[in-house]
Amino acid sequence: MEAFLGELVGTFIMVLLGDGAVANVILKKSKAENSGWIVISAGWAFAVALPVWLFGSISGAHFNPAVTLGLACIGKFPWSSVGLYITAQFIGAFLAAVVLFLHFYKHFEATTDPAVKLGVFSTGPAIRSKFFNFFGEFVNTFVLLFGIIGIVSQKMAPGLMGLAIGILIFAIGLSLGGTTGYAINPARDLAPRIAHALLPIPGKGSSDWAYAWVPVAAPILGGIFGAAAYILLFH
Amino acid sequence: MEAFLGELVGTFIMVLLGDGAVANVILKKSKAENSGWIVISAGWAFAVALPVWLFGSISGAHFNPAVTLGLACIGKFPWSSVGLYITAQFIGAFLAAVVLFLHFYKHFEATTDPAVKLGVFSTGPAIRSKFFNFFGEFVNTFVLLFGIIGIVSQKMAPGLMGLAIGILIFAIGLSLGGTTGYAINPARDLAPRIAHALLPIPGKGSSDWAYAWVPVAAPILGGIFGAAAYILLFH
Amino acid sequence: MEAFLGELVGTFIMVLLGDGAVANVILKKSKAENSGWIVISAGWAFAVALPVWLFGSISGAHFNPAVTLGLACIGKFPWSSVGLYITAQFIGAFLAAVVLFLHFYKHFEATTDPAVKLGVFSTGPAIRSKFFNFFGEFVNTFVLLFGIIGIVSQKMAPGLMGLAIGILIFAIGLSLGGTTGYAINPARDLAPRIAHALLPIPGKGSSDWAYAWVPVAAPILGGIFGAAAYILLFH
Amino acid sequence: MEAFLGELVGTFIMVLLGDGAVANVILKKSKAENSGWIVISAGWAFAVALPVWLFGSISGAHFNPAVTLGLACIGKFPWSSVGLYITAQFIGAFLAAVVLFLHFYKHFEATTDPAVKLGVFSTGPAIRSKFFNFFGEFVNTFVLLFGIIGIVSQKMAPGLMGLAIGILIFAIGLSLGGTTGYAINPARDLAPRIAHALLPIPGKGSSDWAYAWVPVAAPILGGIFGAAAYILLFH
Repeated sequence: MEAFLGELVGTFIMVLLGDGAVANVILKKSKAENSGWIVISAGWAFAVALPVWLFGSISGAHFNPAVTLGLACIGKFPWSSVGLYITAQFIGAFLAAVVLFLHFYKHFEATTDPAVKLGVFSTGPAIRSKFFNFFGEFVNTFVLLFGIIGIVSQKMAPGLMGLAIGILIFAIGLSLGGTTGYAINPARDLAPRIAHALLPIPGKGSSDWAYAWVPVAAPILGGIFGAAAYILLFH
Repeated sequence: MEAFLGELVGTFIMVLLGDGAVANVILKKSKAENSGWIVISAGWAFAVALPVWLFGSISGAHFNPAVTLGLACIGKFPWSSVGLYITAQFIGAFLAAVVLFLHFYKHFEATTDPAVKLGVFSTGPAIRSKFFNFFGEFVNTFVLLFGIIGIVSQKMAPGLMGLAIGILIFAIGLSLGGTTGYAINPARDLAPRIAHALLPIPGKGSSDWAYAWVPVAAPILGGIFGAAAYILLFH
Repeated sequence: MEAFLGELVGTFIMVLLGDGAVANVILKKSKAENSGWIVISAGWAFAVALPVWLFGSISGAHFNPAVTLGLACIGKFPWSSVGLYITAQFIGAFLAAVVLFLHFYKHFEATTDPAVKLGVFSTGPAIRSKFFNFFGEFVNTFVLLFGIIGIVSQKMAPGLMGLAIGILIFAIGLSLGGTTGYAINPARDLAPRIAHALLPIPGKGSSDWAYAWVPVAAPILGGIFGAAAYILLFH
Repeated sequence: MEAFLGELVGTFIMVLLGDGAVANVILKKSKAENSGWIVISAGWAFAVALPVWLFGSISGAHFNPAVTLGLACIGKFPWSSVGLYITAQFIGAFLAAVVLFLHFYKHFEATTDPAVKLGVFSTGPAIRSKFFNFFGEFVNTFVLLFGIIGIVSQKMAPGLMGLAIGILIFAIGLSLGGTTGYAINPARDLAPRIAHALLPIPGKGSSDWAYAWVPVAAPILGGIFGAAAYILLFH
């Protein structure tokens, strides 16, 4: 039960801060408007580091079905808890989207482009291409799981692992995030997309359901391959 | 007495460096003029990390009435010391505003917009709205206290906790700071606002007293709820 | 064998993330387009920190023939393994270039300037000058090896050394990287250049072979001198 | 003797990387041209962190006459070694300026404004005012020494102190650096100014000797007061 709460609240904090950084930068009249990729990528990095610090010892700090499934596939997480974890992650991400909607409400009003409004909640391709968008999310989540399992296999001074995981997210964003917006997490992308569809966001447009399967399927597949690759090569 | 001094000097350093980063970026002819949100949010992050390192073991490094009151409400700080701590925080923040006024005096002269000058001392809403500004500061300080109590509940290598608290501030700024300028601290906002009203700042305008209650009341309330939420859910 | 794999995969991750950061910033229509030197230098910093964390205890985390040769020259790495390590580094860097080509394929299509496309794979001089370009790469790699050997000579809390090495790379990029793009690594520059020549990159131009020897020869020489200088002065 | 070498080489690395970051950003045709205050302030932060890591245990890592004199005044450094340390610092800073001159030679050629060229070597006021420039450097170095003595008084995990000192420099730059360019170090400012006067920099102008005493006298005075303040208040 505490693990369930940890995943729910941890994913809530992660999406609140991560999607918050996107909102901060792309919505009109924000004091951080147009402050660029460094703010978005740093924002997502610390959005992950913080709940990893808080809930690492409580739930293992997955916050991401691709992590939960990747760990389950290599025998490092019980399949019996997978459903519970993913449920918590979706609830947390959904609630974060609702709070963000309220937090930036006046800025959603001040922004005219509906694609920008969706961009606060869910990722979208910089250039639309089923193959390359899928490939991009696959590679990014491959690196994520490979990196996570590699990092947690190290001996680190207490508290440093949360920073290292944050830096892993930072690195993926800085280096590979510009093609699809690096969802690398089905809950982070799909739950806020559902929130986008349901919430009365002023002047909102399509929730882009045609693309919605990519940041769900590709991260799951990429995560499983990334986790398996680390185990096969270095365990 | 040493705790009083620690809070006073720690809040002084925090506001000097934090509001200094704002001055550095928004005042005219500063070499850092227009260097953007990453400089402001990093500046505030380290402005907090530094005195947390210096005074964590002396006063507990509150530097913020919302922290002091939040901790008191959950029984982690004696009510008998609350008045002393808050007094020290206000004195420290006020003195920092005076030094900043001198440090950037020529740049206050070079800047024409009175709203920009006030922005060095106190926060203001990006879009004015009593409800949403209050809600924003409430959420931000909720995250602050939830995060602080979560972080100090962890085992961390000596010295890492100051960095983690700094990263928490960094995260709030990067992600949620663009709507109200993230006061998240009544002393950081009100004491420099009083200084703004009293000091002979060249070409200054209104101290915006109509808004002044928001970054006092909302952080106190948000902080108490954030502290209580962590204790109820994870203690 | 595990060391070989560690060098290969570590160099793969390093070049994937490092050259990825360059692609993210300079290719057209990337969400990180024009996000500037802070993204490139932070991207390269973490691109190195991450595999140092993962493979430090497996291969020593060279990922760079200049490091391997520098360490061999001062007697800290067996000459008998030098060939194996450099082979692994070149294979890893080449494979990373292939994956990057696919990851950013649509953005190579969207970019017209062939020099920008080459810039994703290999470094080039900001101002062409055999002497000064060679001198720049020599100095940068001198600092790299001097810094690496200095850092690994310290006692650091477990996990901190990877961060320190990343910050060393960050520093070189922020401070000295603007003249030649700081290759400081023959494998990082030459293997992706070969990939650039072989891969069907849409609208690609010259691979600039006339310059290719500089970021190979200068880093090797600078690395050897930097390693030797540290040993002579402080050992 | 090893301490002398540590101060000399440490100051060399610090000025090479620190002034290098300035050159990287302000000289024409650098790949990092116009990348802004975040690059300069991060560059100086790591320019200090790196030699603190390397030489902390060898010389105590002063690299700055204001640090050496401040520590001597509070009885934490023998007066008999002050001359030796300051000599080493000036030699190191001077040599770094010479190497930078060569490293960026073509970019000095490509830059027309002589004030920009001087800016690589030495600081200058954003707005010239004897009183306020002196006051600014005094405050900044007060914070520096107060912060250094505070940080080294803490118990930190091995390796973290170098990072904390770097973050202190980062904070001063981000927050208070825009008025005078934060020399906060007589050797860092005066030795490269002498180099500027002596070196055949293409198209150079005045070395601004009228200002040269400010970043020498103010840091020394501010450093002594900052060191004394910490000792008086918290020791």
